[in-house]
Amino acid sequence: MQPFFTDTGVFIALEGGEGGGKSTQAELLVRWLKSLGHTVLLTREPGGTEIGSILRSIVLGHETGDLSPRTEALLYAADKAEHVDQVVLPALEAGKIVITDRYVDSALAYQGAGRALEVDEVEQVARWATRSLRPHLTVVLDIDPAMGLARFDGADRIEAEPLEFHQRVRQGFIDLAVRDPEHYLVVPAGGSADAVHADIRPAVEPWLGQAR
Amino acid sequence: MQPFFTDTGVFIALEGGEGGGKSTQAELLVRWLKSLGHTVLLTREPGGTEIGSILRSIVLGHETGDLSPRTEALLYAADKAEHVDQVVLPALEAGKIVITDRYVDSALAYQGAGRALEVDEVEQVARWATRSLRPHLTVVLDIDPAMGLARFDGADRIEAEPLEFHQRVRQGFIDLAVRDPEHYLVVPAGGSADAVHADIRPAVEPWLGQAR
Repeated sequence: MQPFFTDTGVFIALEGGEGGGKSTQAELLVRWLKSLGHTVLLTREPGGTEIGSILRSIVLGHETGDLSPRTEALLYAADKAEHVDQVVLPALEAGKIVITDRYVDSALAYQGAGRALEVDEVEQVARWATRSLRPHLTVVLDIDPAMGLARFDGADRIEAEPLEFHQRVRQGFIDLAVRDPEHYLVVPAGGSADAVHADIRPAVEPWLGQAR
Repeated sequence: MQPFFTDTGVFIALEGGEGGGKSTQAELLVRWLKSLGHTVLLTREPGGTEIGSILRSIVLGHETGDLSPRTEALLYAADKAEHVDQVVLPALEAGKIVITDRYVDSALAYQGAGRALEVDEVEQVARWATRSLRPHLTVVLDIDPAMGLARFDGADRIEAEPLEFHQRVRQGFIDLAVRDPEHYLVVPAGGSADAVHADIRPAVEPWLGQAR
């Protein structure tokens, strides 16, 4: 499936392991872009729609127990399909800047790292779900998992995985970024929030011409 | 993906439109097979697992509103993945006879009839979800939709579709059956329950050798 980018709006994904500061960076980005006069939509996967929040509670809830790996991949994909069709695409078509906390790369990095399924198969399902819509820019907040997990409070079903799993996830994001440098920025996320934000701005700026 | 049949147990799917008497025929089949001394598991899609019953309430509930067609296909596929991995395959491996009220063909006939998605795409997702596991025998309970819907009480999101939709569904099941006569039986379902059951028995009997 050919990658598909919209020519109105700007689609930015924040990706990376736990504790890399995605939520903080998302807020700083929103504040900055609004100060420039843009209309910004902040959303997330899983859980960016009504259905998605039900699916999120299924896939991340401890009480769910062991889902079949295919079930998990398909529930994440269903969340994505609803998110892209009902939230992301309409906003981009209206010229908005859409910032999503996680997108397809998380499915590939986490499910690929789990090794229960071939990453190619997971990618095919996730791409079909999202009509192969790609972010104009994916920002990977890169952090040593040992540090990232220590920063992190709660532990859901995914965060409770062993450290080695999170190291494979980290490598998964890097591998995706090197395949397409035009649409990726890898930022070391160990520094202060302001320093990380300052690294991100120059990668966002070139896209702002197609935002309302 | 190559079709995959187990060589232990017997996997029987009951398919067809609304009001064809699937539940009644399932009960008659179970009673007969138990009387022969077999271990029988009666199950259904969607909703044959704990997760599946949550997904069933999402996809069939009126309060859900319009799901994106991809979301709907992926939720049905997630239900199938969990059902096959946690219920159907373990029972077949234990030599049981598994009777399911709906399976992959329903996804193809209903979603294909909806025409919102290419049926090939729906099939690819549903086959991946189920590891391409096929029933040894699919019994299509064929009924004129005008008669079937009149027989039917409640109306969920699917049953509320126009008659023409249900006519395309009916054709969808027939098309699947003619492609693989060895594993399909199309039964006119307008007669008495006992008469329909009598038509089904001879198609089931040849498979009983691999049942416990």
